[in-house]
Amino acid sequence: MATLHPETLDRLRGVSTATITTQLFKRGLRNTWMRGVRPLAASGVTLVGPAFTLRTIPAREDLDRLETLADPEHPQRKAIEVTPPGHVLVIDCRGVTDAAAAGDILVTRLARRGVAGLVCDGALRDAGPIAAMGFAAFCAGPAAPLSLCGHHAVALQEPIACGGVAVFPGDIIVGDADGVVVIPADLADAVAADGAEQEALERFVLGRIEAGAALRGTYPPDATVKAEFAAWRARGER
Amino acid sequence: MATLHPETLDRLRGVSTATITTQLFKRGLRNTWMRGVRPLAASGVTLVGPAFTLRTIPAREDLDRLETLADPEHPQRKAIEVTPPGHVLVIDCRGVTDAAAAGDILVTRLARRGVAGLVCDGALRDAGPIAAMGFAAFCAGPAAPLSLCGHHAVALQEPIACGGVAVFPGDIIVGDADGVVVIPADLADAVAADGAEQEALERFVLGRIEAGAALRGTYPPDATVKAEFAAWRARGER
Amino acid sequence: MATLHPETLDRLRGVSTATITTQLFKRGLRNTWMRGVRPLAASGVTLVGPAFTLRTIPAREDLDRLETLADPEHPQRKAIEVTPPGHVLVIDCRGVTDAAAAGDILVTRLARRGVAGLVCDGALRDAGPIAAMGFAAFCAGPAAPLSLCGHHAVALQEPIACGGVAVFPGDIIVGDADGVVVIPADLADAVAADGAEQEALERFVLGRIEAGAALRGTYPPDATVKAEFAAWRARGER
Amino acid sequence: MATLHPETLDRLRGVSTATITTQLFKRGLRNTWMRGVRPLAASGVTLVGPAFTLRTIPAREDLDRLETLADPEHPQRKAIEVTPPGHVLVIDCRGVTDAAAAGDILVTRLARRGVAGLVCDGALRDAGPIAAMGFAAFCAGPAAPLSLCGHHAVALQEPIACGGVAVFPGDIIVGDADGVVVIPADLADAVAADGAEQEALERFVLGRIEAGAALRGTYPPDATVKAEFAAWRARGER
Amino acid sequence: MATLHPETLDRLRGVSTATITTQLFKRGLRNTWMRGVRPLAASGVTLVGPAFTLRTIPAREDLDRLETLADPEHPQRKAIEVTPPGHVLVIDCRGVTDAAAAGDILVTRLARRGVAGLVCDGALRDAGPIAAMGFAAFCAGPAAPLSLCGHHAVALQEPIACGGVAVFPGDIIVGDADGVVVIPADLADAVAADGAEQEALERFVLGRIEAGAALRGTYPPDATVKAEFAAWRARGER
Amino acid sequence: MATLHPETLDRLRGVSTATITTQLFKRGLRNTWMRGVRPLAASGVTLVGPAFTLRTIPAREDLDRLETLADPEHPQRKAIEVTPPGHVLVIDCRGVTDAAAAGDILVTRLARRGVAGLVCDGALRDAGPIAAMGFAAFCAGPAAPLSLCGHHAVALQEPIACGGVAVFPGDIIVGDADGVVVIPADLADAVAADGAEQEALERFVLGRIEAGAALRGTYPPDATVKAEFAAWRARGER
Repeated sequence: MATLHPETLDRLRGVSTATITTQLFKRGLRNTWMRGVRPLAASGVTLVGPAFTLRTIPAREDLDRLETLADPEHPQRKAIEVTPPGHVLVIDCRGVTDAAAAGDILVTRLARRGVAGLVCDGALRDAGPIAAMGFAAFCAGPAAPLSLCGHHAVALQEPIACGGVAVFPGDIIVGDADGVVVIPADLADAVAADGAEQEALERFVLGRIEAGAALRGTYPPDATVKAEFAAWRARGER
Repeated sequence: MATLHPETLDRLRGVSTATITTQLFKRGLRNTWMRGVRPLAASGVTLVGPAFTLRTIPAREDLDRLETLADPEHPQRKAIEVTPPGHVLVIDCRGVTDAAAAGDILVTRLARRGVAGLVCDGALRDAGPIAAMGFAAFCAGPAAPLSLCGHHAVALQEPIACGGVAVFPGDIIVGDADGVVVIPADLADAVAADGAEQEALERFVLGRIEAGAALRGTYPPDATVKAEFAAWRARGER
Repeated sequence: MATLHPETLDRLRGVSTATITTQLFKRGLRNTWMRGVRPLAASGVTLVGPAFTLRTIPAREDLDRLETLADPEHPQRKAIEVTPPGHVLVIDCRGVTDAAAAGDILVTRLARRGVAGLVCDGALRDAGPIAAMGFAAFCAGPAAPLSLCGHHAVALQEPIACGGVAVFPGDIIVGDADGVVVIPADLADAVAADGAEQEALERFVLGRIEAGAALRGTYPPDATVKAEFAAWRARGER
Repeated sequence: MATLHPETLDRLRGVSTATITTQLFKRGLRNTWMRGVRPLAASGVTLVGPAFTLRTIPAREDLDRLETLADPEHPQRKAIEVTPPGHVLVIDCRGVTDAAAAGDILVTRLARRGVAGLVCDGALRDAGPIAAMGFAAFCAGPAAPLSLCGHHAVALQEPIACGGVAVFPGDIIVGDADGVVVIPADLADAVAADGAEQEALERFVLGRIEAGAALRGTYPPDATVKAEFAAWRARGER
Repeated sequence: MATLHPETLDRLRGVSTATITTQLFKRGLRNTWMRGVRPLAASGVTLVGPAFTLRTIPAREDLDRLETLADPEHPQRKAIEVTPPGHVLVIDCRGVTDAAAAGDILVTRLARRGVAGLVCDGALRDAGPIAAMGFAAFCAGPAAPLSLCGHHAVALQEPIACGGVAVFPGDIIVGDADGVVVIPADLADAVAADGAEQEALERFVLGRIEAGAALRGTYPPDATVKAEFAAWRARGER
Repeated sequence: MATLHPETLDRLRGVSTATITTQLFKRGLRNTWMRGVRPLAASGVTLVGPAFTLRTIPAREDLDRLETLADPEHPQRKAIEVTPPGHVLVIDCRGVTDAAAAGDILVTRLARRGVAGLVCDGALRDAGPIAAMGFAAFCAGPAAPLSLCGHHAVALQEPIACGGVAVFPGDIIVGDADGVVVIPADLADAVAADGAEQEALERFVLGRIEAGAALRGTYPPDATVKAEFAAWRARGER
């Protein structure tokens, strides 16, 4: 896994997923946003961290019985215990939304262990308690049925699909009200640096628009506005 | 219809839909949660009661005219007046979400009559006022169009489909933030009793996890933790 | 474009989208509600105004590059600047929900220019800031990716499709918690007048239902209840 | 059920489903064609007959076991034995396509009993043998799983939904390569008579078009072409 | 519109849609294949020609009546008469598959006029007769209902969406058993030339694979195999 | 991997996928049929063999370039060369149908190597030539775009999802006109033996039904019919 610049994760905390898609678009990547994955809580949770992945396949009735969950090596249970603090557990649920990937006890354990968040393209159960916890959970919505109704967990730390996007272990996951984007690990430093700068420019532009400026010349900025932005930046504004 | 244990409905008020799916899974039932049906209000309404059913088919332009709604025997209007207090009106909308199954006047009448809730796999109109009423309404979302645009109501108290689940009159309907589950009437007593016990165990387990316990041995609980739970229960904790 | 009665837009501010679909149904129009389009903000924004339309087709990688957005004649950017105050910008996104039709800077400009609202059957980015603005934005949900990932804007003020409904420039757009309906311009005066009357009747009926009246004779009202409503109206109630 | 004109079914054998939708459109009915239902066989089977209906709901694991099929009163098995000769068995499968409504043994029995055809908005199994039989089977495609995996048959001769269209027992079902349409029983005589006349006109028009005529004046025909058609008809052409 | 090299259309008749997507991929275009659009006839019709476009929006009950089809300026009818011989009529049906874009009389007129083919992301009616004609018709499948049930034709020769792909008038349309691809007009000469060469290489490679060669070095070809191909080409093989 | 009884694969060649789902249903497995996967060729290809699996995730523009296909270790290319003769290559395409999993050159190589068949829940390109080859290819339909447009191949011989069903390497894959079913390896011997017996019984029953027997007592067979079947079997009929 690539070693990140020490400020990259912090910088990304100030960059929106919208801005990140623009930065990735400039680098030739268009398919970076997970379809159908949104924050579970209505309030504005944000999420930044490296991906730790769990892969599932469809449940099989003879294999996926309640007894199997007692095995500490069961990949779903193991994922909860071994996702490193500060990382994001990303679960490939194959877009299946009628069985839960996890519930409040597992999410509580993740939170207690210092894991940064949970992302899946499936459902979570105990959605009420989880939303109230303030933990950064992103999913396709709530569903009551236990995971064994739909999912057979198979492996940790493999490349997976989530919401139609490729996720490799160590990719940087960022989530906000617009959903979740995946930054390939080797692009994260550049996206963080350029994204932070883009955010500053957009704040400057937004101030102009709020003050009544027309789009022309302002958004995107022409040379004059860029110079004014540079001066504003030089004055230490942000 | 089976006669319920007198405490069953009360017990179920303390059992989550997530727990109920686990109890039904233990009894061989996997398909018990309605797909695409969620609480209309953002806040945490819960619902418990026996199902009273209404079945619809697609509207036909020559049959479904405004005049027909004046007939007190029209099945939709009749359902509003005859669903027994404490019961849940469950409407089979065939998953059609671009016409409403009911609006605020009908829902107000249901609430006034003491009906416990309304569940449909279609839409409701006047979603703003209904959400503000605090009535337990679960549906696939709001839609403005009147029911005649999409639905022809045909019969009361037949077995129906709702959200991909079989619903027989008298089945016990439970709804919360995770959606709606259907408990076959003859399983309701056992699911309520065992479900209440499972809830107690999960509260106990959650306390341990919040206190820093690892999943191993705690969730699912091994013999030691089960014994500690039994002692905790014996002390009257819950 | 038809000239509206001077009170039509004001009257429509007091008429729900649910009532409007009933009025249009009486006039033979059933397909008037946009599928999949809902208010971006959780709180109760409402919207009334004539449609100003923007049409898009799928993006093409060689045409839809960041540089093209600097062209003030780019139809998306131009739409933001020329939608008349009080009008509603309606964007045909072909139901594509994985690229945004606009973001917070463009929406801020619309709001600053006095545009009444924005409606699209696609996504918006910067959903958190937009929802906080109080601007009447209706869409299929949030999405982070920039418009160039999915949309190539082609023309203003053409007849378009939005949410499965025909929208002609000048049609009257009304939005509330039940979504968005389209009133053909030449029907707007009649729908507004009759709709306002229907709203008064429904308020009267709702009062009766809240007071315990059964549906029979009250909803729909029989001759007696209609006479009572007329007397109530004559007393200046509303 | 309405009594049909003695020539109605024969007339309909010469009328395409396309023409029938036009005749029903003239009478105010737009929603008459089943979505997703097509002939199982590649070759050109056609179908005309009154509907005999079977309704299903989702399977329930404790009720839908292999043993239940031995009960001659099981509605699916009973439907096979009691659908009258010349009628069409129409099964409401709720659009579920991953379990079969019937297989080759049941279809063979239907054919042996002189039933005109089978229509469902679900799947059939043993699709190879059934397609080879020449029996008029229309469905959403093949699927191997037995009906008990998905369907619980509940009742015969109720109004049902099939492919998004209302079907009342006795409605006239017509199927060809364009799929299946439903003619309300009380409109069947008129649709058959006018539809046969429309077919004659379209054959006449098609001859003109094949001979090089432009659409203008020919399709739809103006007064001159109508008079020529009348003369052609008067000469006994068809 | 760009002027094509005189051999481009002929060359494209020998290039598969699969090969064309590879050529366009090399030039940075990934979204060039229409989703859900396939040949109506089972046998192997192919299609090459410049696009002539027709755009539709959803039908409106008060505008889309049978009488309107008598107007020779009605865009659907006009499209049939003015699409130039050798061109392909491409209709934007917004993916709506429950109403037909055209039927056998209109298609017969297209064929009689020498139009190369018809492509739409909606349905065709009279599918049996059209499939038997041998005309190159590509669509999402058959549907009986007349166009007025779903479509309001609005304009000719505008840029449109079809099957999720942008189509500009004059773009080159190619169809075969794998469906339909769109070649931007200014890339058509290069794609035709390079595509023809790729086809020759693939025929050569296929011969090697049929003779037992492994993929390694053969597909894709290494320098040795490329040299052998060049020699084979130089001998006039193809 | 379990060792199969030496006659199991041969026996399964005489057992339909429909019968296999019944045998698996008897053993508690309901989810065994791949959704959306059908034979590419119209004629009746059948398929039996152990699964060899290939897993894909969504393509990433910077990783999935034409050059990468020259690497003989590329998992897609490697799968073609190492799937053992007599086995079935099963590709997890995540249900993505707008890029091809393979084309005619790769399929020719599979056929040349004696591989029994190819199954994927995605698309194949060069569908015309592949259908003409007589190779047992099952997929979700044709699509022209190359695999790099949609798929990044990651690994061989992992457990995968295909058409919503779990597939473990070595599971037995059976395909016919009803689609594809997956038999867990350790159940294959029993399913083959009991399935062959069920097929014999169904042939016997079908003969009775063709001769005019009613379902009652015949299907399912009662004790008398079972005895007659046993006698028929004892006479060596099949």
